[in-house]
Amino acid sequence: MDVASAARAAKKASIPLAAADSETKDRVLAAIADALTARSAEIAAANAQDLRLAVETHLAEPLLKRLRFDEKKIAAAVAGVRSLMALPDPVGVTLAATELDQDLELYKVSCPIGVIGVIFESRPDALVQISTLCLKSGNAVLLKGGSEAACTNRILAEVIVAASEAAGAPAGWLQLLETRAEVTTMLALDAEIDLIIPRGSNAFVRHIMDHSNIPVLGHADGICHVYVDKAADLDMAVAVVTDSKCQYVAVCNAAETLLVHRDIAAAFLPRLRDALASYQVTLIGCPRTAALIEVQAATEQDWRTEYLDYAISIRIVDDLQQAVDHINTYGSRHTDAIITADRAAAAAFMDLVDSGNVFWNCSTRFSDGYRYGLGAEVGISTNKIHARGPVGLEGLVIYKWKLIGNGQTVAPYADGKRAFTHRRLNRPCAL
Amino acid sequence: MDVASAARAAKKASIPLAAADSETKDRVLAAIADALTARSAEIAAANAQDLRLAVETHLAEPLLKRLRFDEKKIAAAVAGVRSLMALPDPVGVTLAATELDQDLELYKVSCPIGVIGVIFESRPDALVQISTLCLKSGNAVLLKGGSEAACTNRILAEVIVAASEAAGAPAGWLQLLETRAEVTTMLALDAEIDLIIPRGSNAFVRHIMDHSNIPVLGHADGICHVYVDKAADLDMAVAVVTDSKCQYVAVCNAAETLLVHRDIAAAFLPRLRDALASYQVTLIGCPRTAALIEVQAATEQDWRTEYLDYAISIRIVDDLQQAVDHINTYGSRHTDAIITADRAAAAAFMDLVDSGNVFWNCSTRFSDGYRYGLGAEVGISTNKIHARGPVGLEGLVIYKWKLIGNGQTVAPYADGKRAFTHRRLNRPCAL
Repeated sequence: MDVASAARAAKKASIPLAAADSETKDRVLAAIADALTARSAEIAAANAQDLRLAVETHLAEPLLKRLRFDEKKIAAAVAGVRSLMALPDPVGVTLAATELDQDLELYKVSCPIGVIGVIFESRPDALVQISTLCLKSGNAVLLKGGSEAACTNRILAEVIVAASEAAGAPAGWLQLLETRAEVTTMLALDAEIDLIIPRGSNAFVRHIMDHSNIPVLGHADGICHVYVDKAADLDMAVAVVTDSKCQYVAVCNAAETLLVHRDIAAAFLPRLRDALASYQVTLIGCPRTAALIEVQAATEQDWRTEYLDYAISIRIVDDLQQAVDHINTYGSRHTDAIITADRAAAAAFMDLVDSGNVFWNCSTRFSDGYRYGLGAEVGISTNKIHARGPVGLEGLVIYKWKLIGNGQTVAPYADGKRAFTHRRLNRPCAL
Repeated sequence: MDVASAARAAKKASIPLAAADSETKDRVLAAIADALTARSAEIAAANAQDLRLAVETHLAEPLLKRLRFDEKKIAAAVAGVRSLMALPDPVGVTLAATELDQDLELYKVSCPIGVIGVIFESRPDALVQISTLCLKSGNAVLLKGGSEAACTNRILAEVIVAASEAAGAPAGWLQLLETRAEVTTMLALDAEIDLIIPRGSNAFVRHIMDHSNIPVLGHADGICHVYVDKAADLDMAVAVVTDSKCQYVAVCNAAETLLVHRDIAAAFLPRLRDALASYQVTLIGCPRTAALIEVQAATEQDWRTEYLDYAISIRIVDDLQQAVDHINTYGSRHTDAIITADRAAAAAFMDLVDSGNVFWNCSTRFSDGYRYGLGAEVGISTNKIHARGPVGLEGLVIYKWKLIGNGQTVAPYADGKRAFTHRRLNRPCAL
């Protein structure tokens, strides 16, 4: 099946899937979990085949590790599916209810977005996670995984499609794409696909964002900042900066740039240098920083760089406003933290920094759907509309307005013969 | 100032504007209302100049009517600004609050989107309405009005800028564009502009949607349907279809296509024909319709046509599923109604029709922010993300996550030494 046909099939399936009740969706999720368990040997064998080819083509060790999908990882993916069943259905929630007039009631009710296109890199568990998140939220999905995982993805899609359709999911709700050319085609199918979620490297996500008219949910860069204010507790600042930078460097919510108020720079920077030394962090700094500790000279490009490594750029600023301006100029609207004992400074920072996540006295590494308690994470968004920061299932739904009357026409209201009551109702939509 | 500089100025202003408190914003709105009243003679004079030129260039009468902005219309616009002051501030609302651990509290708080680009046609009151909606929601705005209203828009922008900045709005928050070339430039400024709202003709909105990487909020077509089910009360159906079609034909929520269940077509269509005859509605129908009443033969193109006139296309369908399929194929995801006494049919229709507004036993003409009681309407959206249907002030805001700690790092949670509590809090964010 070509991509356009696959997208049309998904769109067709999306209509009955949107109307599926919670019990049906959870029964389908259970069937998927059971089938993945029952066929785990087969899945692991397909993955072993991908791994053999990857070794032959000298895939780097960290990528090999991500590609591996053995029985233990399959069991973890299945546990994820079962925990998704326990989450409340994000569809069918009444968000607002208003009586417009007697027997004329308006309900704003959450509903699926429709058809989601998801593009992810080598981890096969992403296929399981994403397809089940879409199913739980009533969305059809087109999936394109990493080509290194082709065998694994093929059998996973086959198992999920067979189990879900046998348990009542509408035929065609999950479509697997296999080539980059198919992705290019998909990005143009704005009549069928309502949202694209790309997961992967900056350059990859940026490419997707620049080449589609379909809305994209996600983030390219994660250039996160910690600003150490003049009123900071310096012990706390050392601990939080160290954790933000070093706890896990290869992730989007790790800190890349440190901003330090000039009044405490001389006291703070030597202590920070000593703490970061144990992680062998490369320090890159502005001239004022260089006057206090040994650093490589920072260039303009450093402020725009996501190192994803044991490296940090450091700039001394004159005041909070300069820190805010730096972040809003060079940041990526992801996650930025202030360390201060001054409540007013914290409030100003959190209002003025234009990022999805603004933190006071804690590590940037908390910026994560699991840590936020969202139950499931669709991804992290640096969008300014729809969903921002870590996105849970609610990022995969929108709403529709249901108006229930008994024959009302607009004419008497337009003529002034009847008036709207606009009374708030405290009850969910009954249908 | 060129457009790129204007957009940068707006972006700069958007940061302090996002942090402005409710009192400041309402004081600025009051100053705008006062200034518009004080300078209404001057504004009306500028409008008279636009009208003179429009008459000379033979602008059509309906457009002249929309262009007119006399003292009475100015007073109505001022009343709109004052009613906006009375609405609750959409910014700073705590949408969720979670304790992640002791003294580590997460708040999801509504905030402005940032910079909005709005393009509207000849009505000068749109400039007043849109700029004040943006101000109330803390957004900076770039405005481009119809060229016929150039003099009126120029003085309105001047009055609003002068009054608002004197009352405390950040300099540069409102920028007026004057040429189509500037709009073309604006559509490419995705680093500065976060959302485009186009208001105007289908072709115009479609052009904007197809030529920008910036998210667009709005609707192009409004191809609304009424489906008269076999279980419909036929008196009700005649009344609702007549109102949906004829109460005001030039608007996006007027019905353009009627779908009729075959079982009641013979009883219903002659009665509807008689009712529509008094409005001289042109009837365009499928072959089965033509066998029952006199109609022009419908072509495939008719199902995709928004007449915006006294004309309606009519198709007889075999069942509810065929009606749903027709609407999802040819509709524009705007507003669609079912007339039926069968509750299950109504529920199925409302779940299966993929439109922002799905109605049971009432006119499509109710699809409107004022009638919905939203207080203010930004526009009507046929998007599948962010905001759908009539959009009030909440469509101009998004949220940020504020995490407040006292020095917490991620390491102890990652090491299993501490666990998250994820306890829901029932209090608003204190900063």
